Amino acid sequence: MSSPLQIQLTELRDQIDQCDTQLVEMLARRNKLTEQVGQLKKEFGSPVYVPAREAQLITARREQANQYGVNPDLVEDILRRMMRESYQNQQAELACVAPDISPCVIVGGEGAMGRLFARQLSRSGIEVRILDKAQQADQQAILDGAKLVLISVPINAVVNVVAKLPKLAADCLLVDITSVKQKPLEAMLSHHQGEVLGLHPMFGPDIEHWVKQTIVVCQGRGGEKSTQLLNQLAIWGSQLVEMPADKHDEAMQIVQVMRHLTTFVYGQFLAKQPHSLDEIKLCSSPIYQLELMMVGRLFAQSPELYTDIMMAQFDNVAPLLTSYQETYQATLDKLKEGDKEGLMAAFSEAKTFFSDSAQHFLTQSKALLNKANDAKVLD
Amino acid sequence: MSSPLQIQLTELRDQIDQCDTQLVEMLARRNKLTEQVGQLKKEFGSPVYVPAREAQLITARREQANQYGVNPDLVEDILRRMMRESYQNQQAELACVAPDISPCVIVGGEGAMGRLFARQLSRSGIEVRILDKAQQADQQAILDGAKLVLISVPINAVVNVVAKLPKLAADCLLVDITSVKQKPLEAMLSHHQGEVLGLHPMFGPDIEHWVKQTIVVCQGRGGEKSTQLLNQLAIWGSQLVEMPADKHDEAMQIVQVMRHLTTFVYGQFLAKQPHSLDEIKLCSSPIYQLELMMVGRLFAQSPELYTDIMMAQFDNVAPLLTSYQETYQATLDKLKEGDKEGLMAAFSEAKTFFSDSAQHFLTQSKALLNKANDAKVLD
Repeated sequence: MSSPLQIQLTELRDQIDQCDTQLVEMLARRNKLTEQVGQLKKEFGSPVYVPAREAQLITARREQANQYGVNPDLVEDILRRMMRESYQNQQAELACVAPDISPCVIVGGEGAMGRLFARQLSRSGIEVRILDKAQQADQQAILDGAKLVLISVPINAVVNVVAKLPKLAADCLLVDITSVKQKPLEAMLSHHQGEVLGLHPMFGPDIEHWVKQTIVVCQGRGGEKSTQLLNQLAIWGSQLVEMPADKHDEAMQIVQVMRHLTTFVYGQFLAKQPHSLDEIKLCSSPIYQLELMMVGRLFAQSPELYTDIMMAQFDNVAPLLTSYQETYQATLDKLKEGDKEGLMAAFSEAKTFFSDSAQHFLTQSKALLNKANDAKVLD
Repeated sequence: MSSPLQIQLTELRDQIDQCDTQLVEMLARRNKLTEQVGQLKKEFGSPVYVPAREAQLITARREQANQYGVNPDLVEDILRRMMRESYQNQQAELACVAPDISPCVIVGGEGAMGRLFARQLSRSGIEVRILDKAQQADQQAILDGAKLVLISVPINAVVNVVAKLPKLAADCLLVDITSVKQKPLEAMLSHHQGEVLGLHPMFGPDIEHWVKQTIVVCQGRGGEKSTQLLNQLAIWGSQLVEMPADKHDEAMQIVQVMRHLTTFVYGQFLAKQPHSLDEIKLCSSPIYQLELMMVGRLFAQSPELYTDIMMAQFDNVAPLLTSYQETYQATLDKLKEGDKEGLMAAFSEAKTFFSDSAQHFLTQSKALLNKANDAKVLD
């Protein structure tokens, strides 16, 4: 224990611990400062996320890192992680730029997404009322005077829930957050004469802040209240992307339903093999572990939820499912025939589709794999 | 520009910049300290990675974070990122605990993995000689006196390359790093009478350090030199996992070839759809962007390399390909028939296979998604 190595190591490690102690002290100070920034932004109705400030902060510190002989990527990674903390802390104090959408009723407000919206709207000082199964008897009183009605119910229920709503006041904005947009928008437009807006938040209920989170916006019947709501989302830091509902739905079928299905099939396939998950994990390089993680995470969720998502979209998705199957079959045939040229040609076609992004994806995934390795704990 | 908000914000931001400046100074100091630790470890032949020290360092700072009202996860994330830097810096100075495997000849030493091993062995003071196509004429001189011959050639070439090697000295260790293990081991054992070892590094040539990187070890004909080489890998921080070659190869077929194939098919499928990659990206929530990234990254790589990997393994993988296709067909049939019960039953079976890991995967992927969001840059 007191070998020359141990003595010298202990001395160096004590000094490293002093550096790290200083880090924690600095983080405590920085937290207090960013909280004050949050309060100011709330007071003045300024956005939580200011891209130019973020860029300037990072550029300045990268330059300093270069001068000090420190890896600028290390500094940037740490700064970005600290910024997440600051965005999270600033969630506690949010400006209100949409006073005219208060009070707001969240239909399905006891679901996970409903609760997320309820919390965020409340933090911005908007009065939130919940209308879920438990509140059904008081529906009329809850809806009375509502300026925003936000539908947050399962995908299969949306159209029905909208149709069964009582008549809403003309100055009320009706919004849904379903992951399909055409049918809910049609249902809302035919039920309600006032403003109508379709939103698709591209995130789950477990996000820690709204900064840089994408929300797809499909316009229904616009007006002052829709504008206020979109401004409010922007103040929270979200990235708003306008898109026609039909285009959105087509893209979503490819992205969401097809990925669910192939992931679902892959999970079943793995379960049939004579290998335990542990054996498969051991033989997985980091990139395969990441893929395994993304297959496995599906099965932590509700069988009914995912079955419903796949079934609700089946009519639209059927041609895609067949196209995928044909592509698989064609690839299998080429492998059976030993058709190397054919396989390489197919590879090159897909390469063209991904074009410059492929290289970008490679860089991005390398950065993520590094982070996954950082988090690894061995015995 | 000089509104009350601006004035107060500028003041707070100056103070935040002071915190961040202090961070960079601290990182510069810490780098110097970890470099000294690296030199000590080299001198005393100690491992780069000491799990107990890592755990102790993190525990102490998490406790301090709690006392200071700082999020301990923030502190742990930053510490782990700083440790990566320290492991990278310590790569410059590596101990040698395998003096008897020097000189070492790397067959295929001009490939990316060959260069990675060459660099690492050299840093540990082991003499490295490269034997690639360009050096073929001097083969005999290069192999003369070699104590380790490391085969790092494409998967299709291994058996041939081994068979064509001249007779090696009895005191030479013959090793391969191919991603299949049975056939290379057989070829090496029949060609060489001395020590033989099969390794499969579970990482690509672009890793920044060897700490926590998994290497599967398949024993051939053991002895003193094999033990030294494994000790050397452990000193670099790698995680060694012993496994029979047949078990390894079966698991790899499921993990590697099946994932390549389904990813390859998915990429082709996407390329056929009437949507641009940008449209698809916009409609992707972070988890789908991650999946898209992992499909796209394949196509940044060589068509020939991936075609060869799939074709080389085709005979072994054919039953797996058929099983995957049958699973897909069965799922499609259930969807067509509206068999919700059947789909939910299939889901539950896969859920059982993933059991507790599914929840763990969900947590892990959430952490990675947070990190991916941190890195996002919006205009």
